[in-house]
Amino acid sequence: MSIIITKQKLRTFERFYRGNLINSLSGFKSASLIGTCNNDGQTNLAIFSNIVHIGADPALIGFVNRPVEAAPHTISNIENTGWYTINHIQKELVEAAHQTSAKYPEWISEFDACNLTVQMVEGIPAPFVKESHVKYALSLVEIIPIVHNGTFFVIGEVQHIRIENNIIEDDGFLDLEKSGTITSLGIDGYYETKLISRLPYAKP
Amino acid sequence: MSIIITKQKLRTFERFYRGNLINSLSGFKSASLIGTCNNDGQTNLAIFSNIVHIGADPALIGFVNRPVEAAPHTISNIENTGWYTINHIQKELVEAAHQTSAKYPEWISEFDACNLTVQMVEGIPAPFVKESHVKYALSLVEIIPIVHNGTFFVIGEVQHIRIENNIIEDDGFLDLEKSGTITSLGIDGYYETKLISRLPYAKP
Repeated sequence: MSIIITKQKLRTFERFYRGNLINSLSGFKSASLIGTCNNDGQTNLAIFSNIVHIGADPALIGFVNRPVEAAPHTISNIENTGWYTINHIQKELVEAAHQTSAKYPEWISEFDACNLTVQMVEGIPAPFVKESHVKYALSLVEIIPIVHNGTFFVIGEVQHIRIENNIIEDDGFLDLEKSGTITSLGIDGYYETKLISRLPYAKP
Repeated sequence: MSIIITKQKLRTFERFYRGNLINSLSGFKSASLIGTCNNDGQTNLAIFSNIVHIGADPALIGFVNRPVEAAPHTISNIENTGWYTINHIQKELVEAAHQTSAKYPEWISEFDACNLTVQMVEGIPAPFVKESHVKYALSLVEIIPIVHNGTFFVIGEVQHIRIENNIIEDDGFLDLEKSGTITSLGIDGYYETKLISRLPYAKP
């Protein structure tokens, strides 16, 4: 038995109910921590869940940033420095990672507030999360405003990757079940994963 | 012990190795089946994995479409009809869903070739996958060309949702572990999920 929800019905839902429903409708997501610095070198860390692969050559990855009023620091730091890091979240980091979504004043770094460790790498003006097993730095390529709701699609090029050495397979595939990388659902759900299968290239 | 891969090193990798690496670097994804019709009513079905939540009010969801030469049918059908469906994939549908990625000639519907069933709903000129437990229809809002690699970011507004009635929780959250919705990784990895926790709204 199916439940049918039309656009007209959606409009009648209470705001948080609609938010939970639509946020989980799009499916499992790769929630990760994005690390940036402002022009004074102050670090910022925030959890983002809408991250997509755009292409492998050049290696482009995009993420959706909420309207500037709701999420101002990450995007302005990226605009100012041109760099950011994306850090996977393992099961044991879920609570600290989720806590970065609290609205701290600008002078408090979420690294300090959430007990995560800054890891700087020479030549990269953005902080990695030391505890993360899979992480990468990107240089800004383009920020595309989504005019329909004030969000932004931020595109970066992968410049530097750091991964635990036992998770990369012979064909380049990353075994993220082994690294413990979580997947997220909706606004507040975190999941571990178990491989069903890797399938061969499909032919008619 | 970490492995470090720079952009310069990435460039030296063989094409498939680099593709597997970068495709899995962005993390777990919500691979789903996108259903469309052409102007003659011929159905098309294709698996897409880079799907993101953009906003809940209006309910906007985006996906990345590869360059038109590589993936021509879905995007041209969406442009022509203004509609498409996104259908979650359960564990038992993984092989059929993956098989839709084979390059069938235009006159063959992937529904027939992959043994999936067309489900039409009055007023919606795009086919749902009958076997899918969570699915929704969208009207096209905008197609944004990504000039850096010829891909497209396609944005739609959710118009109609169909879900099994035992997976929607009291607060609107969809229990996609219960519905059996899979998550994907890289080009060819499919995973089931297990809840770690849902966390309360974070405060400083």
